[in-house]
Amino acid sequence: MASASSLRAISSLHFSNSIRSPPSSSRAQRLLGFNLSHSFPTLKSSSTNQVLSTSSNFTTSAFFCKNKKEPADSDSPRPTKVQELHVYEINERDRGSPAYLRLSQKQVNSLGDLVPFSNKIYSGDLEKRLGITAGLCVLIQNFPEKKGDRYEAIYSFYFGDYGHISVQGAYLTYEDTYLAVTGGSGIFEGVYGQVKLKQIVFPFKLFYTFYLKGIKDLPVELTGKPVAPTPSVEPSAAAKATEPSATVKNFTN
Amino acid sequence: MASASSLRAISSLHFSNSIRSPPSSSRAQRLLGFNLSHSFPTLKSSSTNQVLSTSSNFTTSAFFCKNKKEPADSDSPRPTKVQELHVYEINERDRGSPAYLRLSQKQVNSLGDLVPFSNKIYSGDLEKRLGITAGLCVLIQNFPEKKGDRYEAIYSFYFGDYGHISVQGAYLTYEDTYLAVTGGSGIFEGVYGQVKLKQIVFPFKLFYTFYLKGIKDLPVELTGKPVAPTPSVEPSAAAKATEPSATVKNFTN
Amino acid sequence: MASASSLRAISSLHFSNSIRSPPSSSRAQRLLGFNLSHSFPTLKSSSTNQVLSTSSNFTTSAFFCKNKKEPADSDSPRPTKVQELHVYEINERDRGSPAYLRLSQKQVNSLGDLVPFSNKIYSGDLEKRLGITAGLCVLIQNFPEKKGDRYEAIYSFYFGDYGHISVQGAYLTYEDTYLAVTGGSGIFEGVYGQVKLKQIVFPFKLFYTFYLKGIKDLPVELTGKPVAPTPSVEPSAAAKATEPSATVKNFTN
Repeated sequence: MASASSLRAISSLHFSNSIRSPPSSSRAQRLLGFNLSHSFPTLKSSSTNQVLSTSSNFTTSAFFCKNKKEPADSDSPRPTKVQELHVYEINERDRGSPAYLRLSQKQVNSLGDLVPFSNKIYSGDLEKRLGITAGLCVLIQNFPEKKGDRYEAIYSFYFGDYGHISVQGAYLTYEDTYLAVTGGSGIFEGVYGQVKLKQIVFPFKLFYTFYLKGIKDLPVELTGKPVAPTPSVEPSAAAKATEPSATVKNFTN
Repeated sequence: MASASSLRAISSLHFSNSIRSPPSSSRAQRLLGFNLSHSFPTLKSSSTNQVLSTSSNFTTSAFFCKNKKEPADSDSPRPTKVQELHVYEINERDRGSPAYLRLSQKQVNSLGDLVPFSNKIYSGDLEKRLGITAGLCVLIQNFPEKKGDRYEAIYSFYFGDYGHISVQGAYLTYEDTYLAVTGGSGIFEGVYGQVKLKQIVFPFKLFYTFYLKGIKDLPVELTGKPVAPTPSVEPSAAAKATEPSATVKNFTN
Repeated sequence: MASASSLRAISSLHFSNSIRSPPSSSRAQRLLGFNLSHSFPTLKSSSTNQVLSTSSNFTTSAFFCKNKKEPADSDSPRPTKVQELHVYEINERDRGSPAYLRLSQKQVNSLGDLVPFSNKIYSGDLEKRLGITAGLCVLIQNFPEKKGDRYEAIYSFYFGDYGHISVQGAYLTYEDTYLAVTGGSGIFEGVYGQVKLKQIVFPFKLFYTFYLKGIKDLPVELTGKPVAPTPSVEPSAAAKATEPSATVKNFTN
């Protein structure tokens, strides 16, 4: 066993941050409070602004424009029927996720810890790669007697050209929870409702059942019969390989 | 008074993080980017997956199932009447909250600081323990002339089996604010509206008035006549002791 | 060029945090988990509670009270027509924003990095200073081939006495995105819909087009004809100087 001091030498980290940047950094960088040399493409070692090309390759633009041209549609009553949407979230350990930030400085998970994360999502029938999740878990409390944690989870589900759904609520590592659906974009514009989060294999496989309101009928490729959530479920080989026939259009990656 | 250098030696902290783990850590851990030895129960020193028991003790399941069996109800128009809900948030200093993360590295509160927090909540009449708040405050700006701070607050209110309400908006330590109600679960599924945040004793007692729409009538035990918010208000002894008669069912703790 | 070790000595930072406060700190502070000497006005070196004056200078109270006195109005159907709202977000480099927190400890932007930020916002016609943005970007992924990053963005737009709008979704530094409108306060109470984020000059100028539903007609001063987003756009001199005629009432600052 290593001595306390050597253990500390190994495990301690030093944070670098542009706010206390080296004396050689430009005044512009310090005013900005942003580490330009690390953060932004093509701005390296330069304090001049870069004009982003307003690229026309944003493939969902046609989709959204279409929506905007339908005033009759947008004035129609907001649908209140419930539509179920099943999604698998799978951590295939190739995205560097999650990043457990032990900012509490405690030995056990404690308030102060933050956990940014991003995993892959698949359709409930496991035949289509849809996209990713992306967001933040805030560690609220560790329950030794339950061998688990309470997190406040704030994240979104991205479905390629279809758009996204944002959610917020409790993630308990020891039981299922319901989170709020707080909004969405694309076909999920104006969505509301809730979503059930079911753990399958912690923390690598989760199964979600969304109860969605406020939107038009979901596309068929999202509403296939879900595979029952068991520990052995796996996406189809084609979906895992993101073959064109096994992804939604411009799936988020 | 300590000298600057000794003060720094005392107050500085070193962050440990699994991403730069000791050389002895397994490759699996590093791929995962997750400190398994700290973060997850029963996964210690092992890279095999654990199957979570799909426990049946999630006491709200009956509640939600009931909702799902009522298609007629879910197709009915969304209620737009305003319902007021009064809640006290009290920091009884027994939850290790808040965790002020001085990530800005500045002497005064500055952009870059983050403040995860979780406090207890009681009904407006102070007769029932409801549950907890849980979330994150992002320090936006310090106002020396106002002796206070602006935070962007993103958090939820948990009401035991009743479900939860998520909110987002400004928390100013020197005046009242209104936050957005962004969604909810359980009896708060589909909720929208806003909530007034009123400071009473900073930062230990706050009084909230929710203006809720989109939901059915609130249960009677949540809508008792609120005690007027003064610095001396305290929850009833029974509520503070979480006696069964003085809590909502399966109050969040 | 500095040697690796000296560079590290210069650029590394030490985090101070109340959780491991100096031995001289009071037990009350440690129980609270809050660095009172830094965080809160007039609580310095004291563990007694301070009663916040319930100031009557919250200028929007009349506004909200009026709303509450209109039961007929609040029972009316929720508007579903789409209203466009154009907003410029400009980083004038005087707010210490953004604060790039390189918590990932990686050389390139990586999951684990967090970016609190707050910029100024102007009306689409650039004639009025409206307020600020405030929130958090969670770095999800760096795309070297696109020379850009994916962030999960959770923030609000503040419009002075008019209230605020909260949003969540993807911020990609290399192309436009749509975020969800998750709620609001004041004239934006009950708002839903989505917002298009368009980069102009990265990361200093952005142009937003909100597609808002669920609210009454927007005030005229917010709906002027927008200036086309080009790299050279600037707010009017009066708006930049926050002259009374060129701001909304009690613009957020």
